[in-house]
Amino acid sequence: MFLEQKTISRELATRMLEAAVDKAEELRVAVNVAIVDNGGHLIAFTRMDHAPLLSVDIAQNKAYTAAAFGLPTHEWYELIKDEPSLKSGIVHTNRLTVFGGGYPVRCGDELAGGIGVSGGTLEEDQACCEAALLQIKEEVNK
Amino acid sequence: MFLEQKTISRELATRMLEAAVDKAEELRVAVNVAIVDNGGHLIAFTRMDHAPLLSVDIAQNKAYTAAAFGLPTHEWYELIKDEPSLKSGIVHTNRLTVFGGGYPVRCGDELAGGIGVSGGTLEEDQACCEAALLQIKEEVNK
Amino acid sequence: MFLEQKTISRELATRMLEAAVDKAEELRVAVNVAIVDNGGHLIAFTRMDHAPLLSVDIAQNKAYTAAAFGLPTHEWYELIKDEPSLKSGIVHTNRLTVFGGGYPVRCGDELAGGIGVSGGTLEEDQACCEAALLQIKEEVNK
Amino acid sequence: MFLEQKTISRELATRMLEAAVDKAEELRVAVNVAIVDNGGHLIAFTRMDHAPLLSVDIAQNKAYTAAAFGLPTHEWYELIKDEPSLKSGIVHTNRLTVFGGGYPVRCGDELAGGIGVSGGTLEEDQACCEAALLQIKEEVNK
Repeated sequence: MFLEQKTISRELATRMLEAAVDKAEELRVAVNVAIVDNGGHLIAFTRMDHAPLLSVDIAQNKAYTAAAFGLPTHEWYELIKDEPSLKSGIVHTNRLTVFGGGYPVRCGDELAGGIGVSGGTLEEDQACCEAALLQIKEEVNK
Repeated sequence: MFLEQKTISRELATRMLEAAVDKAEELRVAVNVAIVDNGGHLIAFTRMDHAPLLSVDIAQNKAYTAAAFGLPTHEWYELIKDEPSLKSGIVHTNRLTVFGGGYPVRCGDELAGGIGVSGGTLEEDQACCEAALLQIKEEVNK
Repeated sequence: MFLEQKTISRELATRMLEAAVDKAEELRVAVNVAIVDNGGHLIAFTRMDHAPLLSVDIAQNKAYTAAAFGLPTHEWYELIKDEPSLKSGIVHTNRLTVFGGGYPVRCGDELAGGIGVSGGTLEEDQACCEAALLQIKEEVNK
Repeated sequence: MFLEQKTISRELATRMLEAAVDKAEELRVAVNVAIVDNGGHLIAFTRMDHAPLLSVDIAQNKAYTAAAFGLPTHEWYELIKDEPSLKSGIVHTNRLTVFGGGYPVRCGDELAGGIGVSGGTLEEDQACCEAALLQIKEEVNK
């Protein structure tokens, strides 16, 4: 028996990038934005002019983390903060990002991929992700 | 717009492992068998007693290659042998395996994952893969 | 003089996977399960349908850690927490996992390999490992 | 004394992606397209629906190679083929890609970044790069 999955199309990913960049411009911050598929692999990426180089990988890792576990990255710290072994240990997991700016992308109940933004404050990065998700809310709420 | 994908279930992967191992026992060879999903990530793996350690990764890389490009790994060399730049260059691609023993797993026309076997000769490894695909032929030919 | 070692057979590893998955189903959680030999190398692996992708590597790292040091992974934090240099340093060791869900597999007194489970809470992951060890207790207590 | 550098803006990178994708659609092939800056770091990336997963990294490596040495990747093999030590050795350089589908992006005489396309034949990948460069020829020929 094969399983059915949803993943993000290029068309959807491109619209998400644009919406995240529009929000970043409104916030006057330069960010990197990454969209990954349900396997955590890159579909679309954009770096705004003068966005920090360090954030190129962070944006991709946030998107990966969200797609690979199904949680927004800002919920991870709450999950691990009271369990010292996780708090000091799980943060070493390859590519795992436990701070805000990554969100899973769902189609109804199904995990279909992730978006990650990096370059601003956590609040700014999250606001850019949320703008991208809002842009595709009709598909997401199907 | 989200895209629909098929991937391999645990139930299907487990049946494939068993069929590949049965064939290897019939051939009196000890192999490693790996099944990956449509994102190239491991779903199921088994190492027969005394199978070569070197083949643990090779089996996984063959399965990855098949899922990541949609071709049986034994077709790669034909593809690159007359183009010197590919022949000497593309073999350095991370995890790419250009010799036999990896097959894509399809559900009808759709690429759903891959299987890789390593530990025997190329012919033996391929025979184990083919036995696994035969085991799920009803699902594959849907 | 050569040394004698014990390691886990495919037959034993397969029974362990099944017992861990049965327990996970009882707990209604989807996990990844990995069994490694006394060299820390993968023998058997299974991913339940919809288990988190992030846990594919974590399960393998837990099994590796348990086999490579002979301690259950949940005992590591106790070991390092009062020595600041270990607490901040040793967690960077490649593949070392200091939270629960990995157990050594012994044959009598001898370290023969490890099991790792990831995808649930620490308690759920540990319960799946323990179910797997219980399944082979006759061999373990030899 | 500081040096002046040119690099590719997001606006230019986005136009290049679109032109490469338009050409790929005309050729009826699904490709990955990557644009990197003068430091070889990703600026923009897009994966067409159903483009091979294996090509995600290859496209980025082609763009990197072109930006990091200033040559189209299809000129590399000619450069190394008659010098056995290079032919067998330099292909092991991390990320170096010696087959077609990567082009430097120049502003006048200055190296400003690179583009890489992967997913089709070498000729198709190169045609997509050339379409992207044609799209920005006014800026390139400044």
